[in-house]
Amino acid sequence: MLRFTKMQGLGNDFVVIDAIHQTVNLDEAALRRLADRHYGIGCDQILLVEPPASDEVDFRYRIFNADGGEVSQCGNGARCFARFVREKGLIDRDEIRVETAAGRMVLWLEAGGEVRVEMGVPRHAPAEVPLLADRERSVYTVNVEGVDWQFGAVSVGNPHAVITVADVDEAPVARVGTVLERHELFPERANIGFMQVLDLHHARLRVYERGTGETLACGSGACAAAVVGILQGTLESPVRIDLPGGTLRIGWQGRGTPVYLSGPAVTVFEGRMAT
Amino acid sequence: MLRFTKMQGLGNDFVVIDAIHQTVNLDEAALRRLADRHYGIGCDQILLVEPPASDEVDFRYRIFNADGGEVSQCGNGARCFARFVREKGLIDRDEIRVETAAGRMVLWLEAGGEVRVEMGVPRHAPAEVPLLADRERSVYTVNVEGVDWQFGAVSVGNPHAVITVADVDEAPVARVGTVLERHELFPERANIGFMQVLDLHHARLRVYERGTGETLACGSGACAAAVVGILQGTLESPVRIDLPGGTLRIGWQGRGTPVYLSGPAVTVFEGRMAT
Repeated sequence: MLRFTKMQGLGNDFVVIDAIHQTVNLDEAALRRLADRHYGIGCDQILLVEPPASDEVDFRYRIFNADGGEVSQCGNGARCFARFVREKGLIDRDEIRVETAAGRMVLWLEAGGEVRVEMGVPRHAPAEVPLLADRERSVYTVNVEGVDWQFGAVSVGNPHAVITVADVDEAPVARVGTVLERHELFPERANIGFMQVLDLHHARLRVYERGTGETLACGSGACAAAVVGILQGTLESPVRIDLPGGTLRIGWQGRGTPVYLSGPAVTVFEGRMAT
Repeated sequence: MLRFTKMQGLGNDFVVIDAIHQTVNLDEAALRRLADRHYGIGCDQILLVEPPASDEVDFRYRIFNADGGEVSQCGNGARCFARFVREKGLIDRDEIRVETAAGRMVLWLEAGGEVRVEMGVPRHAPAEVPLLADRERSVYTVNVEGVDWQFGAVSVGNPHAVITVADVDEAPVARVGTVLERHELFPERANIGFMQVLDLHHARLRVYERGTGETLACGSGACAAAVVGILQGTLESPVRIDLPGGTLRIGWQGRGTPVYLSGPAVTVFEGRMAT
């Protein structure tokens, strides 16, 4: 019997598996079966919690897409991981150090059950986004179907372009997103955010995720939007970002410092499955 | 804590809840939350197993769509129900009598874990299908986009038209189905089956379900296809029907007798959820 916990963060849902206290042998086909919403448990991603490889971290975790392939990072998944190890009594501290395929990360359980994640130091140089541009600017311009779109660009582990719009409900997320994400300006493609600034500490955001389309909530997209808004002078830290799937809070002290994301992580149910 | 079992029959998936040994109070909003695939457990339908209202049956069960509304019948759900009550030890017989919103039903656990369901006596008279035709025929003709399509028609609780084709993979299920399901010949619309007969006891089938579109597996459509094929002389009972979602077996002894459907019901996992 495989024991698992179903969790979600802003509607991004995970099967979280303790691979410390039970032996877990899941190949790609088995992972795909688990993730299947009709024949399996159903989830966006599967999260395996493993023992650490060194004393410098408390855990290691691996994250797999529904197609069985291993991926490097997911902010919503990181929050669920932190809540999981605390709720299951795998750790009794509020600060959790973890090793992932994307590197080391520190997570904090906050009062109220939300989890804060350090999302790394944003990169602004065009070569680091990556973005084809002669020099760094706070606003770049690109033409899509005869219309000039202005955007800010940043890497938060993955490439983001953020477009400020007057009304996010009216933004042509799918139409412009699908063209921009694979625009020649972005050699590794890009996630495309459409942000409406409500006040200095509050914005609304919709994100077209690279290779996926519009999603309910993109953690790195929220960080990118806050960073771009702060650099353009329309936002100040901390920033509340409302996404279609819920709300995230972003803290960033400026250039060269890491960006922090806080948000919900919810346990939906506990399960046991014959494997 | 709500205890539940996730099950599936040909990919049609169910949250099955024992409402005999635990108190279950789920209003429409709670049912919708349970059925939600990102924020809840996720399923096509929820099945509540309740004590019988009289000694003439062993159980009562109620079935709810993902929108929280109660519906009357589902062949895939009936099989999961039967497997559930047997696996949970709620009954120790292989013949299970149950009361549903659609009336009484008898279900049989077969060797090998499949479940047989009595699907009622098929109706052939045009007025009973219902179909606008002057008299009953084994083959009717309808013109769609300049092409004559020949079909058999039968009611198995709901109206079905079954078209025999040479190759079901090539059948224009969506294009012709969407026109035929709402054709004036069918006053209550119809499910449109496209059947390829492989031999006297074996056919392949794709079904365009009324109001839904093509589905992975339609139990009543499989019954209708077998009945139509038997009446047209191309099939003989028992008939194996291969659908995109899996295989069903149909038994029918001819006019005026009930049709029987056998198929799989699979337990996927056991769960507990805070409510």
